[in-house]
Amino acid sequence: MQQSTDATVAALGEFALIARLAAILAEAGAASAPELLGIGDDAAIWSPTPGTRSVITTDSLIEGIHFRLDWTTWRDLGHKALAVNLSDIAAMGARPRLAVLSLGLTGREPVAGLLDCYRGLGALAARHNVVIAGGDIVASPDRLGIHVTVIGESWPEADCRLLTRDAARPDDLLAVSGPLGLSAAGLELLLASPPAPLTGGEIARFLDAHHRPSPRIEYGRALVAAGVRAAMDLSDGLWGDLTKICERSRVAARVDAALLPVPTDLKARFPDRWLRLATRGGEDYELLFAANAAALDRVAAGCAARGLPPPTVIGALIAPPDGTPAIRLRHRDGAEEVVAGGAFDHFARWG
Amino acid sequence: MQQSTDATVAALGEFALIARLAAILAEAGAASAPELLGIGDDAAIWSPTPGTRSVITTDSLIEGIHFRLDWTTWRDLGHKALAVNLSDIAAMGARPRLAVLSLGLTGREPVAGLLDCYRGLGALAARHNVVIAGGDIVASPDRLGIHVTVIGESWPEADCRLLTRDAARPDDLLAVSGPLGLSAAGLELLLASPPAPLTGGEIARFLDAHHRPSPRIEYGRALVAAGVRAAMDLSDGLWGDLTKICERSRVAARVDAALLPVPTDLKARFPDRWLRLATRGGEDYELLFAANAAALDRVAAGCAARGLPPPTVIGALIAPPDGTPAIRLRHRDGAEEVVAGGAFDHFARWG
Repeated sequence: MQQSTDATVAALGEFALIARLAAILAEAGAASAPELLGIGDDAAIWSPTPGTRSVITTDSLIEGIHFRLDWTTWRDLGHKALAVNLSDIAAMGARPRLAVLSLGLTGREPVAGLLDCYRGLGALAARHNVVIAGGDIVASPDRLGIHVTVIGESWPEADCRLLTRDAARPDDLLAVSGPLGLSAAGLELLLASPPAPLTGGEIARFLDAHHRPSPRIEYGRALVAAGVRAAMDLSDGLWGDLTKICERSRVAARVDAALLPVPTDLKARFPDRWLRLATRGGEDYELLFAANAAALDRVAAGCAARGLPPPTVIGALIAPPDGTPAIRLRHRDGAEEVVAGGAFDHFARWG
Repeated sequence: MQQSTDATVAALGEFALIARLAAILAEAGAASAPELLGIGDDAAIWSPTPGTRSVITTDSLIEGIHFRLDWTTWRDLGHKALAVNLSDIAAMGARPRLAVLSLGLTGREPVAGLLDCYRGLGALAARHNVVIAGGDIVASPDRLGIHVTVIGESWPEADCRLLTRDAARPDDLLAVSGPLGLSAAGLELLLASPPAPLTGGEIARFLDAHHRPSPRIEYGRALVAAGVRAAMDLSDGLWGDLTKICERSRVAARVDAALLPVPTDLKARFPDRWLRLATRGGEDYELLFAANAAALDRVAAGCAARGLPPPTVIGALIAPPDGTPAIRLRHRDGAEEVVAGGAFDHFARWG
């Protein structure tokens, strides 16, 4: 009963689809290990590593809101759906262990596309030793939705330590794990009207950052090893996310525009907008963390030892002058401005 | 800045909504305990109980597919979204510990409705000592979706034992934890055209079974304590679900129609259809389990000791005659028929 891989989900049926998706995960090396009973039971089973704490995060991608099928490949979509969740695990300084997926399918999806989606997801899972332990497929008549939940745990050597948003202190330095604004630059190119020609070396890099973010799992591990306690991942843009650290830790922040790690070719391509892309664009999936100078030295040494890029200091935390957390941006000319915080509100457009 | 509770989600905004929902969970006693860091960080943290195994399940309710807002109350919707997931934890013989939610909102939902939804969900969570540890809110422009993931672990006294679908053996007796067909009867009444008058004592019971299923957490615990190893929850109807046990355990089954625990008032209301409702209707959320006679005696004793209803034997498992799992139904007159398996396919309608 050979089915064409061009068939739609509706033509193939739910149960045959599940069998095919499971086979893709097995090929990718992301299927359940024998000790981890997954697909096929009411729930997936695993054994937490003794002496660790567990973490859980869930993040959804909805067609038309988080992705467009005419912009992304199916493979990249699978990669990104898992990557944004692994990034949250990285931000906790934790090791990812397993994921469950809930797919909301219209039925009109090409089977070949969904298999590619699982190839992208499976490859990323295998790279980080993550098992896809099962999930749920439901009908979602209007648009595709991919709902991912990832379980992780503190690294065995970390003695239960994790990274949180409430552990930053005044006088900590503020640093990031990598460049800012690349993903937003990619999105800007995709949104351009009239369409921008999508050629040239830096453009491929911008698009790749947008479609295939890399969760900074090893970086988070290095932060914990260096004794850092406060971190988060940059998903909503620097100003939105830094606001959350400031609120949770009851500190204020001073950021120096000249220190922001924005690539030269990004500044050249968007001379008027690079600062906005780097601070409000979102989806960088780099880690933002706070540490005192001694811990930051240990981070730099740990990154060098692990072959990771060095941290970039972008500013410092301060005691909030009047009890209200606030972010100040210092421009090259020495002028300072107070930055309005606030992250992406899913309903603001309809408000 | 007092907002009317009649406001829509879009008018209130995502972040104010999250604060209101968190307050509802705190009132219900289902918010994060201090040792369990939840809402507000990249991931929620918990400490697995040493010497236990963990389980995870995920299940989604989509508007128009799994529920209709003109049939259910918001409060019942919240109850059910969590209950169907807790039922999977019960089926594993596990203790639920925490849940994360991903809400896909159109923005047009009344805030008062969503708060009621969280009241229903929070009350059920509190009853089972489950913490709602966070989640995600995304825009889902066309219809509401509630995606729930629940984490559980083996009961401390169970020495890591859990219930699975692959542990049934030929000659095991087959039993269920409670009545069959009530939820399907409720759905049948809701679907009736012309509309059925929804009054009368048994009708309230049918509708309640459909809208507010009770996860059999304590029953699953009693099964593990009695040494039972094979179980699942009845979500897709007896024939669909029993097929899964037969396939995973490589056994066949013989079910006796006269033994099925179908309430008299259900048979009276649906004289021609009660067998179909009880075996193919789905959403019973009772436990289906297999055990030898000695274990079943221990189950009965354990249920009596815990104030749970006694198990009802509905048949037995047998070695598959020709290697193909099959279910045979024995009618009152002694006639036997082979039952076609197969569960609800979300895409069959479009196939």
